[in-house]
Amino acid sequence: MGSTAKISPFAPASLPEVPEIPGVRFATAEAGIRYKGRTDLLLAVLSPGTVAAGVTTRSKTCSAPVLWCRKQLQHGRARALVVNSGNANAFTGRKGHEAVAITAEAAAKGAGCAPEEVYLASTGVIGEPMDASRFAHLLGDLAAAARPDRWEDAARAIMTTDTFPKLAARRVTIGSGEVTVAGFCKGAGMIAPDMATMLCFLFTDAPIAQPVLQRLVAATADRTFNCITIDGDTSTSDTVLLFATGKAAERGIPEIRDAADPLLAPFAEALQSLMHELALSVVKDGEGLTKFVTVEVLGAENDHAARRIAFSIANSPILKTAIAGEDPNWGRVVMAVGKSGEAADRDRLAIWFGPHLVARDGERAPDYAEPVVATYMKNPEISIRVDVGIGAGQATVWTCDLTHDYVAINADYRS
Amino acid sequence: MGSTAKISPFAPASLPEVPEIPGVRFATAEAGIRYKGRTDLLLAVLSPGTVAAGVTTRSKTCSAPVLWCRKQLQHGRARALVVNSGNANAFTGRKGHEAVAITAEAAAKGAGCAPEEVYLASTGVIGEPMDASRFAHLLGDLAAAARPDRWEDAARAIMTTDTFPKLAARRVTIGSGEVTVAGFCKGAGMIAPDMATMLCFLFTDAPIAQPVLQRLVAATADRTFNCITIDGDTSTSDTVLLFATGKAAERGIPEIRDAADPLLAPFAEALQSLMHELALSVVKDGEGLTKFVTVEVLGAENDHAARRIAFSIANSPILKTAIAGEDPNWGRVVMAVGKSGEAADRDRLAIWFGPHLVARDGERAPDYAEPVVATYMKNPEISIRVDVGIGAGQATVWTCDLTHDYVAINADYRS
Repeated sequence: MGSTAKISPFAPASLPEVPEIPGVRFATAEAGIRYKGRTDLLLAVLSPGTVAAGVTTRSKTCSAPVLWCRKQLQHGRARALVVNSGNANAFTGRKGHEAVAITAEAAAKGAGCAPEEVYLASTGVIGEPMDASRFAHLLGDLAAAARPDRWEDAARAIMTTDTFPKLAARRVTIGSGEVTVAGFCKGAGMIAPDMATMLCFLFTDAPIAQPVLQRLVAATADRTFNCITIDGDTSTSDTVLLFATGKAAERGIPEIRDAADPLLAPFAEALQSLMHELALSVVKDGEGLTKFVTVEVLGAENDHAARRIAFSIANSPILKTAIAGEDPNWGRVVMAVGKSGEAADRDRLAIWFGPHLVARDGERAPDYAEPVVATYMKNPEISIRVDVGIGAGQATVWTCDLTHDYVAINADYRS
Repeated sequence: MGSTAKISPFAPASLPEVPEIPGVRFATAEAGIRYKGRTDLLLAVLSPGTVAAGVTTRSKTCSAPVLWCRKQLQHGRARALVVNSGNANAFTGRKGHEAVAITAEAAAKGAGCAPEEVYLASTGVIGEPMDASRFAHLLGDLAAAARPDRWEDAARAIMTTDTFPKLAARRVTIGSGEVTVAGFCKGAGMIAPDMATMLCFLFTDAPIAQPVLQRLVAATADRTFNCITIDGDTSTSDTVLLFATGKAAERGIPEIRDAADPLLAPFAEALQSLMHELALSVVKDGEGLTKFVTVEVLGAENDHAARRIAFSIANSPILKTAIAGEDPNWGRVVMAVGKSGEAADRDRLAIWFGPHLVARDGERAPDYAEPVVATYMKNPEISIRVDVGIGAGQATVWTCDLTHDYVAINADYRS
């Protein structure tokens, strides 16, 4: 499990300083849900007036907390967030819903709000009944102990097979003053978000109306978390939530109620940059990875086709293992374009590995020099660019290689 | 490569006896296309009057020989088949078509027919230019040396990372007499046929008209080769060809010209059984496998939905690695059903591992005993059954686990 796995080669040397956000406090505990000797329970307490926006997995077998969050996102009022790791509370039937209810009730009591203002997320093993009574009694004390400077603790408590905590922050000017938007996420395996990554929590003091926030989060998730894949496997628990306390209004920063408000633009840009960084950090901690891979497709029939071709490349096991072996096996890129089902013309296709053109006009590039490209493959970050040559569709997705360690981690995840 | 890989645990103790088929002769050679010290070139010589039927990959980046075969299948006359291993002649541009023309020409000369009556297939590395002049000169001698009893030699010459040759035969009564239908195939990696497996060649002396044969092969491929997956990666070279010499007509067996002819039924049944066996033998030699896995889906919205769900399960890397680890991680089956995009209701889903009901009604089965199911997972053949619980759609697909050896084989395939 996480504790015994090798640290990702892309783990940052140090974690970023994340400023406190007015209205946001965190506390964590060792509830012993599955892991020993580490935290596995997070409570975030949010000030009155906070609104939540978010997106959840499109999985047809989604978890009980996902169903709960979807329901609460309809009103969008938020006062607390509870996240546990070690058990996904997915495919746990009636007991799963009971666990959700018990948890929301206990957190609401601690935070002084209604249960419907509590958002929940669980990550870990699927199908194991979750006994919420083992940790619900801790939530009252956690609410009392919650502090605004506990970002790293919060990010660590939600990890499963992650080898480093994933945190990022941005400062944005809205009108006359500055607001902060910051968050953390977790990933590692079963990552091919169809809507959002496994779990990502974002917080801001910007005063933005819930409907505006909701549109913004959905659109940004589509360009960030929905463009990454570790193994093509979509989790039952994918959740991105952004909580806006609105506290910056107390400093005279105007509330944004309209998506067309020009004051929203710098915030939208910062959110894009923040979610992009966090999404990439999930890939950079993909289970067992040794290479971070950017797949860029252009010249496809349209953007949707480009995305399908990019994912066909990014999810190909036989290509991902070649990358692990530092083999510039671009023939497997050809294969993946061909199997995508999207329009392609072999004789117009061009492929680059980093700066090296390896194929064009339906055959190997005339200047192709295998030793040169093989040397390029030794880089920890690999870029694959495909020009389909038939239209203007573009897409970029991010993935990693498929290694012995991915097999090792997942062959005995539960043992 | 193939020669150094561990032999599949499912390799048969001995190869089947395949009877000679009137009108079919084989010869093989060591052409040194890529491999050393083994055969890599096969010529099959077919008697005048032979017809060919077949299906090829739906890949948009298919190989030059696939394009050639598609063209010749329009008339369906056949007098020779040439197959080489070590080079797929895919994404090789104009040179690829030249290599095809040179090979067809040389084989036609040897077999005494028109180049358009020669069928071609190549398997191996994609994107490497193929120099047909290195082996075309051998085809004349091979045509002279071809013998009807060289089934095993033929099956061996087309192997790449396969660890055993895949051969099977059936005898069928048509009217007053018996005919034979037999063939061989190869697989190993990049296996998720969208139309056919990488390469499968079938031969019969049954007198069956080409249009009847074509419909039969396409329908049977759909139930056999199109229901297997090793890694979800569809090859550029997938080809199934069935050659019917019609020689049995000389023994008074009536020609079948109509798909509704009742005499066709036993042949169709034998062909189904033969192609089923060969398709499963491809899975049983999947790169690096330790487990053979049958995925059966029932109760889906319709058969198409059942098939998509079954492939979603069969292609899930995180489930396939769990199976390699003998972990009954049925939560990953739940995940794969959920991500398939097909209609599902978590609370009606039921899942069995072998005879053991592990989940039903949206949660773990009440009698679930992990040690019992963990013991079941130690079997070399694993069966996963899913009842979606919402309709009458059914599908069965066959796959294998994802192991360290798959990664090892593909990380240095070309080195």
